[in-house]
Amino acid sequence: MPGAFSFHLLATDGAARRGEIATPHGPVATPVFMPVGTQATVKGLTPEAVRAAGADIVLANTYHLMLRPGAERIAALGGLHQFMNWPHAVLTDSGGFQVMSLSELRKVEEKGVTFRSHLDGALVELSPERAVEIQHQLGADIAMQLDECLQLPAPRVELDRAMRLSLAWAERSKRAFEGSAREGHALFGIVQGGDDATLRVESARALVDIDFHGYAIGGLAVGEPQEVMLRLIGEVAPVLPPDRPRYLMGVGTPGDIIEAVARGVDMFDCVLPTRNGRHGLAFTRFGPINLKNARHAGDPRPLDETSNCPAARAYSRAYLHHLVKANEMLGAILLTTVNMAFYQELMAGLRAAIAAGQFDAFREKSKQGWARGDIAPL
Amino acid sequence: MPGAFSFHLLATDGAARRGEIATPHGPVATPVFMPVGTQATVKGLTPEAVRAAGADIVLANTYHLMLRPGAERIAALGGLHQFMNWPHAVLTDSGGFQVMSLSELRKVEEKGVTFRSHLDGALVELSPERAVEIQHQLGADIAMQLDECLQLPAPRVELDRAMRLSLAWAERSKRAFEGSAREGHALFGIVQGGDDATLRVESARALVDIDFHGYAIGGLAVGEPQEVMLRLIGEVAPVLPPDRPRYLMGVGTPGDIIEAVARGVDMFDCVLPTRNGRHGLAFTRFGPINLKNARHAGDPRPLDETSNCPAARAYSRAYLHHLVKANEMLGAILLTTVNMAFYQELMAGLRAAIAAGQFDAFREKSKQGWARGDIAPL
Repeated sequence: MPGAFSFHLLATDGAARRGEIATPHGPVATPVFMPVGTQATVKGLTPEAVRAAGADIVLANTYHLMLRPGAERIAALGGLHQFMNWPHAVLTDSGGFQVMSLSELRKVEEKGVTFRSHLDGALVELSPERAVEIQHQLGADIAMQLDECLQLPAPRVELDRAMRLSLAWAERSKRAFEGSAREGHALFGIVQGGDDATLRVESARALVDIDFHGYAIGGLAVGEPQEVMLRLIGEVAPVLPPDRPRYLMGVGTPGDIIEAVARGVDMFDCVLPTRNGRHGLAFTRFGPINLKNARHAGDPRPLDETSNCPAARAYSRAYLHHLVKANEMLGAILLTTVNMAFYQELMAGLRAAIAAGQFDAFREKSKQGWARGDIAPL
Repeated sequence: MPGAFSFHLLATDGAARRGEIATPHGPVATPVFMPVGTQATVKGLTPEAVRAAGADIVLANTYHLMLRPGAERIAALGGLHQFMNWPHAVLTDSGGFQVMSLSELRKVEEKGVTFRSHLDGALVELSPERAVEIQHQLGADIAMQLDECLQLPAPRVELDRAMRLSLAWAERSKRAFEGSAREGHALFGIVQGGDDATLRVESARALVDIDFHGYAIGGLAVGEPQEVMLRLIGEVAPVLPPDRPRYLMGVGTPGDIIEAVARGVDMFDCVLPTRNGRHGLAFTRFGPINLKNARHAGDPRPLDETSNCPAARAYSRAYLHHLVKANEMLGAILLTTVNMAFYQELMAGLRAAIAAGQFDAFREKSKQGWARGDIAPL
């Protein structure tokens, strides 16, 4: 079937991989950064602006959308792509992470999770089967299994229990998906196990036995040091089949992404470019710049005159500082635009470098730029 | 001098006028609606989006910009056009209205007004001469004299006093402008006098004797009924010279604008399209639509499939409702875009109708559409 989900590895450079995912809504070049569209919108950007930044795919959230406006409503309106005017690929998170981080009075049982909505306190049930059903209603090109996420640090007995529960849910998710799968759509399993490498490897092996279209590493970047995260990725990635995409959920900083790509990860999502944009922080080749800082108030220079992003070239730091201080929407819009372009340029650079066998040089050059930092005008 | 301020009347239809203003930053087709860029940004829109909606000119505020980031700072950064990345025309309000509506502890004297900044409580002085100086520092193509605005109703003795003070300030503004005028820039006088037609006409005649590039009618749409406003415009407009543009400050609704154009007004500014956009209200050919209303939650129709504005065609009312309920920035962005396009389409329609001698038919058709109201789907 044309446009059915598939993954092709196009090049490798060490453990770093350059690939392409086919989806019913177009191709996704990997390594890929997926802008987060939690509530069916990437905060601060029109879909045209998200696309113009270079995005092939966005992420949306089952948890948020099931509560508002409801999966049945979005299905009746033609699915998420039509709803949000985004004709390209969509991946939906299953809701496990948000149940942990946003809802109250949650009860995790074998059958699923029961929680109170953070919006109106309504009691809501979410099972592995229901999470798959919702993601089909949303029309996700890539759906995620329901899993249980723990915050770190957590006792090993808890990590073990949550990992095994997530595995049982993975099996049920797979069965539910096969019973209702729309042709060409994909379901990913999620490796859990906290910061315990033995549990992580066991989780990965068991998921591979179940056989998913792709494999995510969940429950990282939730408080542990970067070196712990990278060590665990280094343990898990070799267990995963090379012909399936690998997705590190909720990660991360530019440095996190480069190091995870170096260890064989293909897919990323993170709120950093959007959230930081709303809080006055710009990502640049020379590290982050906090536009709230008074030193920018009279600075006529753009953020980066060599950026491909018009917003990084056409506005002075003084103007951006003014907009941020005055709490004007345009400040958030422009900085989100700049950050989105930065992340997408980073991914395009990674893809080109891997294809050219220049990954190490690209990593070195990028890190040198970030380490140089912003230099004040003479 | 090419691009120097001038006004040419191109056509009339009854009292309605079709004209063109030349400015150092390009032509302005009249009747014109000027989007309000209070703090050097039209809230929620990039300059490209403001231009794409059809705007030739935006308004910025002396009061806000003198307090933050400061007129000297904007001058050092190349002026307002460069600061806000808007290469087209800019009109600046003198600050009189904002001193009345925003600041505390203001003291109005013959020499000028002293007030406390609404930002930090700092004591600030603004004189007619300083208001002209600031507007030159900002680089305004069209500057406004400092005036004293009163809220209505007000006692006649107060209206009389404020009108005469504004006239004295008009003379001083003119002298200050002539002493420092950058070639090609313009200064407008402001007719005051509250809801008293005799005072209004006296104010207009005296301003014409002073001789300005254009004449504004200030201090209306501040609480009085629409019929009072229109009656006063009808009294004042005939006193103003036909070869100068007439600007009705801070007005208004689409109906206000059409009726003021019918009485010979050429220029308008108002926060309605931007403020209402941020509050979930869309202007359409069939009247305003409140997207907060639950009846839109499942409505797949766009706001107006015949609009020239892509945002009015590409998104369902259900999606806009969702964005507004979820308090997502994109809701404000899209509705502001729709409203800005609506206002600019209205002005383009007025200009075409006047040029074609079809003003009355256009007025009738527009009002019939608004009166029809939004019709629910079958």
